[in-house]
Amino acid sequence: MKDVVLTGDRPTGRLHLGHYFGSLANRVNLQHEYPMYVLIADYQVITDRDLPGRIQRNITDLLLDYLAVGLDPAKVTIFQHSAIPELNQLLLPFLSLVSVAELRRNPTVKDEIAHSSQQAVSGLMFTYPVHQAADILFCKGTLVPVGKDQLPHIEVTRLVARRFNERYAEVFPLPEAMLGERPLLNGLDGGKMSKSRGNAIDLAATEDETAALIRKARTDSDRLITYDETHRPEVANLLTLAGLCLDRPPQDIADEIGHGGAAALKRLVTEAVNEFLRPIRQRRREHTEADVRQILAAGNERARERAIRTLDEVRAAMGF
Amino acid sequence: MKDVVLTGDRPTGRLHLGHYFGSLANRVNLQHEYPMYVLIADYQVITDRDLPGRIQRNITDLLLDYLAVGLDPAKVTIFQHSAIPELNQLLLPFLSLVSVAELRRNPTVKDEIAHSSQQAVSGLMFTYPVHQAADILFCKGTLVPVGKDQLPHIEVTRLVARRFNERYAEVFPLPEAMLGERPLLNGLDGGKMSKSRGNAIDLAATEDETAALIRKARTDSDRLITYDETHRPEVANLLTLAGLCLDRPPQDIADEIGHGGAAALKRLVTEAVNEFLRPIRQRRREHTEADVRQILAAGNERARERAIRTLDEVRAAMGF
Repeated sequence: MKDVVLTGDRPTGRLHLGHYFGSLANRVNLQHEYPMYVLIADYQVITDRDLPGRIQRNITDLLLDYLAVGLDPAKVTIFQHSAIPELNQLLLPFLSLVSVAELRRNPTVKDEIAHSSQQAVSGLMFTYPVHQAADILFCKGTLVPVGKDQLPHIEVTRLVARRFNERYAEVFPLPEAMLGERPLLNGLDGGKMSKSRGNAIDLAATEDETAALIRKARTDSDRLITYDETHRPEVANLLTLAGLCLDRPPQDIADEIGHGGAAALKRLVTEAVNEFLRPIRQRRREHTEADVRQILAAGNERARERAIRTLDEVRAAMGF
Repeated sequence: MKDVVLTGDRPTGRLHLGHYFGSLANRVNLQHEYPMYVLIADYQVITDRDLPGRIQRNITDLLLDYLAVGLDPAKVTIFQHSAIPELNQLLLPFLSLVSVAELRRNPTVKDEIAHSSQQAVSGLMFTYPVHQAADILFCKGTLVPVGKDQLPHIEVTRLVARRFNERYAEVFPLPEAMLGERPLLNGLDGGKMSKSRGNAIDLAATEDETAALIRKARTDSDRLITYDETHRPEVANLLTLAGLCLDRPPQDIADEIGHGGAAALKRLVTEAVNEFLRPIRQRRREHTEADVRQILAAGNERARERAIRTLDEVRAAMGF
């Protein structure tokens, strides 16, 4: 059986370099090897009360970023979760295959329950691993690029697939997690790179914005630049970033800068990042919002056809 | 705003007289006053492992019984829950509006958790009140004929509707439970009338089967027939059944039988039931399985159009 890749994002805004090196670059490679579905998990953001108004804008930005980094809509099916009722209907049979105890045991759900003693956990959050099973199984996804923290979710998906196959008929493959090697790239303040911390370089930022962000990056006063993750994490992080953009070992870059200090380091990083992002930013400008709408409409249609086929198989297997 | 009635059944097999006097008769009346949707809750039976194979047969029998008692498919939209993906998709936004604590507090779910310490409660059962909210709200149902035990479910539906309206936009009416007066009609052994106890008279039973069932009904040896619910519950129940079929007070019937004993009582009940069911059974025979398929296909199509309109409104309200 041919492998199928399922991956996706929550539409929370523009993507940054952390996303790029963490997952987008990998997707761009995988699209040449496998059929791939990219899910825009719009229902996952409805728990954040004030987001819905921005969802449409966020989805447009997400699509523009996808096109910018080189995802090819002729190869990849990009679709919106909320636009595929047949995918969502899979939730019902799947919910019958998992117990409340099993849902409660899921580490992410457990974590959420532990951290929100005041604010109650919603039914949507509680059943999240089963939604993810529907997201993966609707297209018979077999390879799911994830981080280690996502492994328990993939286990629930495998459980659902196995139980469905045992109880009714062999409909679903058992998907595998694809644990890629992700470079440890932090934000410009040394903390986790995240939009909300203002420490991330958006793919769509201008060259000047990029330069300003890197100028404010945390470093130290030692003029000799060395790559030392333990004692000089912020400097090491900037070297890692430059290394990723230039495809060179960060140690080499440190040697090249030598006694140039933070100023020379930041100049080099700024140039490397802007150089690296130039073709990506160029491609982003080549696409209009109308392109995006058309690509999404076509992707939704393809994904929906896939979901209808799977739901038909599921209903037939169950005797409906 | 015009009222809309939502009602339905699990497709567990042929309907019996308990169903008729408990709810079907009421529906037949209501269909002349209100637009009505009748949901066949096929997903609700998938927890019973060995049922799926019989679902199709059960749905056909259910439809034949509906037509037999006089539900008019030109007036009433009869549809299958599993055939309406857009209805089922409502589950996702609705799950986000209810907390796990609220789901756990629901008496039916609580009961299920208490009674199944060994066999775990499924995610489907746990989220059942939210499914019911989707079932009711997809057609903007405002009147829901239910028994008292269903009141907490209607409360969850009202909660979901209220929260959705507050958070996004005024989309849903708040439905009301219609607590009809249901005659207390027990089975022929004096226990709750239920298919699985073999104490129920199916609408589709033959006259001979009906006679045989009533012949075996539990009574007592007192030849004077009196209506005494407390001391002679089985005799009272047979009198109630005859009274419902003849539209006469059960006391009158007891007086008429006088000292005739159980034999006379059973003769009278048999005749009353068979007489009452004759036109119903006649109409049942006038419909073929092909009729049923066509009626269900048309109902599914109408229900689906309704669900698509509601889902569109929901997505627009949420900013999708």
